[in-house]
Amino acid sequence: MTRTVAELAALLGARVEGDGGTVIEGVAPIDTASPGELTFLANPRYTDRVKDTRASAVIISSAADTALHERDLVPPGVALLVHDDPYYAFLRVLTLFHPAPPAPPPGIDPRATVGKRVQLGDGVHVGTHCVIDDDAVLGKGTVMLAGSFVGAKTVLGPECLIGPNTTVLRECTLGARVRIHPGTVIGSDGFGYAPVGGKHEKIPQVGGVTIGDDVEIGAGCTVDRATMGQTTIGSGTKIDNLVQIAHNVQIGEDCIIIAQTAIAGSTKLGDHVTLAGQVGIVGHIEIGSGATVGAQSGVGKSIPPGTIWLGTPAHDIGHQRRIYAAISSLPDHVKTIRALEKRIAALEEQLAVHIVPPAQS
Amino acid sequence: MTRTVAELAALLGARVEGDGGTVIEGVAPIDTASPGELTFLANPRYTDRVKDTRASAVIISSAADTALHERDLVPPGVALLVHDDPYYAFLRVLTLFHPAPPAPPPGIDPRATVGKRVQLGDGVHVGTHCVIDDDAVLGKGTVMLAGSFVGAKTVLGPECLIGPNTTVLRECTLGARVRIHPGTVIGSDGFGYAPVGGKHEKIPQVGGVTIGDDVEIGAGCTVDRATMGQTTIGSGTKIDNLVQIAHNVQIGEDCIIIAQTAIAGSTKLGDHVTLAGQVGIVGHIEIGSGATVGAQSGVGKSIPPGTIWLGTPAHDIGHQRRIYAAISSLPDHVKTIRALEKRIAALEEQLAVHIVPPAQS
Amino acid sequence: MTRTVAELAALLGARVEGDGGTVIEGVAPIDTASPGELTFLANPRYTDRVKDTRASAVIISSAADTALHERDLVPPGVALLVHDDPYYAFLRVLTLFHPAPPAPPPGIDPRATVGKRVQLGDGVHVGTHCVIDDDAVLGKGTVMLAGSFVGAKTVLGPECLIGPNTTVLRECTLGARVRIHPGTVIGSDGFGYAPVGGKHEKIPQVGGVTIGDDVEIGAGCTVDRATMGQTTIGSGTKIDNLVQIAHNVQIGEDCIIIAQTAIAGSTKLGDHVTLAGQVGIVGHIEIGSGATVGAQSGVGKSIPPGTIWLGTPAHDIGHQRRIYAAISSLPDHVKTIRALEKRIAALEEQLAVHIVPPAQS
Repeated sequence: MTRTVAELAALLGARVEGDGGTVIEGVAPIDTASPGELTFLANPRYTDRVKDTRASAVIISSAADTALHERDLVPPGVALLVHDDPYYAFLRVLTLFHPAPPAPPPGIDPRATVGKRVQLGDGVHVGTHCVIDDDAVLGKGTVMLAGSFVGAKTVLGPECLIGPNTTVLRECTLGARVRIHPGTVIGSDGFGYAPVGGKHEKIPQVGGVTIGDDVEIGAGCTVDRATMGQTTIGSGTKIDNLVQIAHNVQIGEDCIIIAQTAIAGSTKLGDHVTLAGQVGIVGHIEIGSGATVGAQSGVGKSIPPGTIWLGTPAHDIGHQRRIYAAISSLPDHVKTIRALEKRIAALEEQLAVHIVPPAQS
Repeated sequence: MTRTVAELAALLGARVEGDGGTVIEGVAPIDTASPGELTFLANPRYTDRVKDTRASAVIISSAADTALHERDLVPPGVALLVHDDPYYAFLRVLTLFHPAPPAPPPGIDPRATVGKRVQLGDGVHVGTHCVIDDDAVLGKGTVMLAGSFVGAKTVLGPECLIGPNTTVLRECTLGARVRIHPGTVIGSDGFGYAPVGGKHEKIPQVGGVTIGDDVEIGAGCTVDRATMGQTTIGSGTKIDNLVQIAHNVQIGEDCIIIAQTAIAGSTKLGDHVTLAGQVGIVGHIEIGSGATVGAQSGVGKSIPPGTIWLGTPAHDIGHQRRIYAAISSLPDHVKTIRALEKRIAALEEQLAVHIVPPAQS
Repeated sequence: MTRTVAELAALLGARVEGDGGTVIEGVAPIDTASPGELTFLANPRYTDRVKDTRASAVIISSAADTALHERDLVPPGVALLVHDDPYYAFLRVLTLFHPAPPAPPPGIDPRATVGKRVQLGDGVHVGTHCVIDDDAVLGKGTVMLAGSFVGAKTVLGPECLIGPNTTVLRECTLGARVRIHPGTVIGSDGFGYAPVGGKHEKIPQVGGVTIGDDVEIGAGCTVDRATMGQTTIGSGTKIDNLVQIAHNVQIGEDCIIIAQTAIAGSTKLGDHVTLAGQVGIVGHIEIGSGATVGAQSGVGKSIPPGTIWLGTPAHDIGHQRRIYAAISSLPDHVKTIRALEKRIAALEEQLAVHIVPPAQS
């Protein structure tokens, strides 16, 4: 596929500087793009990169365009597409050059195993070696790829995508357009035991998992079913790889949860919460809407909405940065303390020698 | 299913206060229970919650019952079931209302693949797309769910449950009633290489994995086989999701290991050890029986029996809490040090001005 | 299988002390070896262990041999094989006594599902319930074990081993002799979203994953495909279990990455980098060749080649050890600060009483 810069500009509503007839054959990041490729510059601080790119065209913001002209850095022979939101414009071109692979054709592979009373919507694809247990429901256009499993009484909404070798156990409910990547397990038993005579007796985990619309869950994740009631993940929430969601966790809408994070039982996240990688959240607390937790943090107490936390145990990010700075020079501080001790001892000695203590009358 | 409060009390050996004829249709936690449901209160500190519950009946302890009466908080129209162990009593009712799903019927699915000389006990269930390799043994009543794999010469005891898409590799030995949740891998090669000329040459991992009775291993875990000998997990131990157990680790009985913990090679855990979430334990050390390690801790040295550790590097929990407190106010301590420096300098200056130094005779 | 000590010594090029006719039936670590078994001692510091071993023969270095004789610790009846590299020699004997299980026979299991235009090299084994999607290529002698998945247009080099229930998605490229353990997912979508009106819009992940020769990837790992271009893992690199490699990460050759480590997007590792367990590396930085990062560290900035880092945030290991020491006694330091404050206040008071302030003329 090829497009001219002028054609792309018309598509994007961008203004062209340079040769609109330049032919574009592909897209690439600014530092690896080759001639014939289009790239973009989102951050005006990096305008220097434009003059070094080998790309044939660059999508940039007005601010970056002005900066290029002021600093006389406009590279000769490179067409510029000026757009309000260069990154988003670039993504549109990316999707144009790399359309999503076609959905697999509707139908049930003869090697799939489908249980009793299963309801399948129009256009459903069930791949080879897939298993759908009794009384499950797959919405219109939902796709199960090879070797994936859907348990009894589980309901998948329309247009879901269940990756190869993925496991959604019984009595879970997924909304529309949910994507679950390979190796992930939805609906495993919550980790609950009662101490009985020095042994751990299993507490039945009789609840389920409820996932909203447009949720995406990465590869190798585990989402446990509730002890009673539901573990819930709100619509629009996106979860990276190898994340652990324990029983009865409640996650709000449009949250972002990065790889290897773990959320312990019954904790509640508001909407638009961001948890960076390898975060641990204890059970039975609340993370307010819009809160952010930095990478590798350990959160042991509830967090108010809209605040940013960092560290183990987590503090307000400003405070934690001061703590990190203080820790970084802690060996020096200890030396200072030792030196002060000596100076004080010297002062005390001097005073003892030179000053007559107050008379005890 | 419904039961009256009187019927449940008889079953549990509980004393009823209020209307024994109250009809119970289900169970729920105290804060989400609806009319017609039974709940429980285990912790007398939370007696306030009883007056706000919408449940029709509450299992409570004598102590909580007394507290309710003293504070006049007994909610009208709510039946109380007084029992020595409200949580355990509640679990019995939970199991009554939510019996375990029936075991899948005995038999080998025609789409399962079973190798040569495999021994299958009575009542074994081997689901669709399961694979059992040559010379494996499945004890009486053991269940392999869809797509699970059991390797050559591996022995599963009676009444084990192997979840869908789970992998137990060759030459592993599982005891009775072991439950392995989906996505987990038992018997992967230990991570061992010998440096040879700047390259890493694989060390054959020729040992196995031995798991005792009544062990439960969550979803997405990895348990490596031993280099030589056995990686062992003692009877009654329960392991949460996404836990890593390296080669030649020895885990005792009735341990609790929470999600995303990793135990490095050849480390030995006693009995009744508790490792909280995201803990890391280095190789070749010993964690004494009854020891507890707090969440996200990093343990680099052996731990005596019965002690509690926290932090990276881990300290005794009392000491670590003092460390955390000191760290939390570390920026203030640094300011104090700076202020003390100035005050000492001022004192030194004052003394230099006002005191004649000792004559050097 | 049995071998005499003299036969083994000839094979290894080792010098025998003691009875060359001693018959060896197996191998074991020094502390668990039984009569009839061979063991080894790599570290001369542990020569004491030789006198306590029950093994019939021990491979040791010249240095250890000398130390044993000097300290008169040579155990009677134990044959010694003196060799320059006892560990490597031991591994050769280990491999002799425990040869790798025979490769599964060439052929495509009738229950495997193979797509269109798939190219299969000579001697390929495709196990039961495996899936190979359209246009994939498997090199000569490559083995796919039961239930594994290879996506469309993916290319596996010769003699690769893909474990049971493993998933290699579309358009990935693996070199020769790559081993992927069960449950691992190669080529899952990178975690990329663009904020659009308070929602997270998925950024298409159109790149791939390129893996060099002789790479080994443990169980339960996730390696994301690039947004554009390739996520790459260099030849000879070894990765443990449950490791997360994000989109566009570039890993050099012969690196060692231990369990539960996560590397965020676009970060670049040089060659011979070692990352210990549970390490987190932020995105868009560089880890220089030969660098080492200690367990549980959090790395937020680029690291120069050949350096060793530890802690969260990570510092040079020497500095971090001083920090850990200072933190360990931080509660004491705080007490000292409090005591110094009091002593200074006392000094200030004494001086105020005894010294007439300078006259303000």
